[in-house]
Amino acid sequence: MALPGLPVLRTAQDTRARLRQIAARLHSNQQHTRQVETIIAAVREQGDAALLDFTARFDGQRFAAQELLVAPEAGARALDSLPTELRLALEAAHSRIEAFHCQQRPPDIDMTGPYGERLQRCWRPMTRAGLYIPGGRAAYPSTVLMNAIPAKVAGVEQVVMVTPPSKDGSVNPVVLAAAALAGVDQIYRIGGAQAIAALAYGTETVPAVDVITGPGNVYVTMAKKAVYGTVAIDALAGPSEVLVIADETAAPELVAADLLAQAEHDPLAAAVVLTTSDHLLSRLPSCLARQLAEHPKPATSARSLQDWGLAAKVATLEDAVDLANEFAPEHLELLVAQPDTLLPRIRHAGAVFIGPETPEAVGDYLAGPNHTLPTSGTARFAGALGVETFMTNMSLIHYTHGALEATGQHVMAMAASEGLHSHGESVRRRLKTQKE
Amino acid sequence: MALPGLPVLRTAQDTRARLRQIAARLHSNQQHTRQVETIIAAVREQGDAALLDFTARFDGQRFAAQELLVAPEAGARALDSLPTELRLALEAAHSRIEAFHCQQRPPDIDMTGPYGERLQRCWRPMTRAGLYIPGGRAAYPSTVLMNAIPAKVAGVEQVVMVTPPSKDGSVNPVVLAAAALAGVDQIYRIGGAQAIAALAYGTETVPAVDVITGPGNVYVTMAKKAVYGTVAIDALAGPSEVLVIADETAAPELVAADLLAQAEHDPLAAAVVLTTSDHLLSRLPSCLARQLAEHPKPATSARSLQDWGLAAKVATLEDAVDLANEFAPEHLELLVAQPDTLLPRIRHAGAVFIGPETPEAVGDYLAGPNHTLPTSGTARFAGALGVETFMTNMSLIHYTHGALEATGQHVMAMAASEGLHSHGESVRRRLKTQKE
Repeated sequence: MALPGLPVLRTAQDTRARLRQIAARLHSNQQHTRQVETIIAAVREQGDAALLDFTARFDGQRFAAQELLVAPEAGARALDSLPTELRLALEAAHSRIEAFHCQQRPPDIDMTGPYGERLQRCWRPMTRAGLYIPGGRAAYPSTVLMNAIPAKVAGVEQVVMVTPPSKDGSVNPVVLAAAALAGVDQIYRIGGAQAIAALAYGTETVPAVDVITGPGNVYVTMAKKAVYGTVAIDALAGPSEVLVIADETAAPELVAADLLAQAEHDPLAAAVVLTTSDHLLSRLPSCLARQLAEHPKPATSARSLQDWGLAAKVATLEDAVDLANEFAPEHLELLVAQPDTLLPRIRHAGAVFIGPETPEAVGDYLAGPNHTLPTSGTARFAGALGVETFMTNMSLIHYTHGALEATGQHVMAMAASEGLHSHGESVRRRLKTQKE
Repeated sequence: MALPGLPVLRTAQDTRARLRQIAARLHSNQQHTRQVETIIAAVREQGDAALLDFTARFDGQRFAAQELLVAPEAGARALDSLPTELRLALEAAHSRIEAFHCQQRPPDIDMTGPYGERLQRCWRPMTRAGLYIPGGRAAYPSTVLMNAIPAKVAGVEQVVMVTPPSKDGSVNPVVLAAAALAGVDQIYRIGGAQAIAALAYGTETVPAVDVITGPGNVYVTMAKKAVYGTVAIDALAGPSEVLVIADETAAPELVAADLLAQAEHDPLAAAVVLTTSDHLLSRLPSCLARQLAEHPKPATSARSLQDWGLAAKVATLEDAVDLANEFAPEHLELLVAQPDTLLPRIRHAGAVFIGPETPEAVGDYLAGPNHTLPTSGTARFAGALGVETFMTNMSLIHYTHGALEATGQHVMAMAASEGLHSHGESVRRRLKTQKE
């Protein structure tokens, strides 16, 4: 295995420029857009017929409509058949994620105004949620837990999962087991833009949902954007990324391990380290090479490091944080002696992994916070998937006659300034009615 | 003035079918999509040059770039020049809306896990917000307050407002005054899809923002959808609607006034009443006709009532609530003797106006809750604009070595099941390092 070509930069200017390129590494193109629009329109108009047709074409499975739904007992069976070690792991992850998410239920407001009027904001679960779980090369039971648990904690009545069938038409048993553990109500063997369209508009077989969450390839992501507004969606996920800030105390082998844990996801994954340590920069290539040589499937990681990896020297750790804030990474690791001194300076990151005992992998699987995080710089305006992703709020306003008398003239003045005659009338008539 | 042609239906089946048509009254078309894509691409690539060009073409104003920004002192001047009555109204509205929104700041989480690991969720304001305030026929100071106040309460550093110039190139003074009152930092005289593109991507003059909120016409709404993902947006607003549930105690004149207060917004606005009262149904047409005759600009209301208005008989108030839940109205009025008995049954509505003393207009202007509400049935999955619209959350994970020892084997088991070798390695190496 050759040395991975992790580029090394030494000026803030070069680093900033390269980070901008890395943040922009994924752009959808017009051709994808038109294809996705066509698929969505077909499923919306033709329902199951189109859904089955696309499943045959893209997933190679000639299902009948009644074969789309995975047998309800399959999940419990898969859970019972899991190796003990993995079952204990999933149960530990489930209980830790649930404990953290139980604290996320947004609080209601119930206040009484100065004239006895009652003003409320009530949060309620959405009725049906649709979870997209990618299939393909790997199975991701952690993605099932991270999407299903917040929906269940929110109180969603019906949690529907879709996942593309594997080559023999089956669904990965660990994914089935995780779904059973998390209380997923129904699983359909469909994937791609056609699965998103089915969840958004419903077909004869697949129920229409209120919100769609979960990661997917570029077609899935574009389909989610297309149906946004017809349903709610969690976010538009891009490829994953980590930015590691390391000082002289960071062990090069651990930095290398953490970079590789990001790079192995996807050739488009980005693993970046900003460091004050020349020692680390000089040791990193050989550490990466040695660890890559032990990797059972090194090609993806090598490609990702070469294309989107970066090691850069910074003058101070504060400079590193400033660059990180501009990049707004999905994952930010602080492999430094005094991480707490840097925390107040951090503005934009999906999740921060603090200190040498916190590899990103604990957050990926079971620390508790959600692993569905904003990518590609969107941490500027987006946070983790949460319980509120599956809830909505309703305002309640209950005025008294006294409140209307006290504030009615203000309503009429504002209505007049906006040229809305009947708005004012709706108040004036009530005040008059009572006086008569 | 002829009787408005408010259709009257008498079976639940007819009513349900008509409500579905009303909910679907707005669909964008492909032609709009392409136009909006072209405008956005031009502003993104050419910045101010394209922005000025579209402003000349669509708003008839040949501005230089430095004329886009409204002079900072204009707001304070407009506020000082307001008639006292209107100034007091805006101040009352501001203080009531602020008091309600101050309770909306989402709470942080800070918990310690069983092995001493610390897990946090921290909410933070976004840095820059862009508010779109429609121009055209009317000025909407209430929209300024309802968008700016949540942004300020969230703690947004820079609140930027855009609004299309009027025919003489100016911005409505009441809008300027409301912006000054609410603490808007900058106002640009731009509108349409080009203003949304400028806020999303930035130009030489207009700063790029993190989130765009506010209502607009179909071009603005489609532009918001197009830039969703590059920035956050509040929602895709459709035309406004009210559904009134009325019993025998509801005064026909007040029902008529409330329907007209919705209908006067827009020919596409929808005003619906579901009632158990034959008396109300028989009185409503003449009440509407009489009130319309007093309206200074009755054409919009008459058109809206004719095209999208509905009065329907229901057997019971519970039936009415069930129909309302399916329709998921933006505004739901309960003009009934015992509104509290209906509340537990209500599942989907943007805001509920409870009892005869609560016309929707109090919520539009100053009750306290936000008037930016989900339209076209989207209350199934969306709520009011809120303080959290302008905030994001960041997860913080700080593991101890003990926590890694206690949970590390679970992380490694899950990583192995997902085929992610380096994820497991990042934990294994840390556990090994410490043992040596």
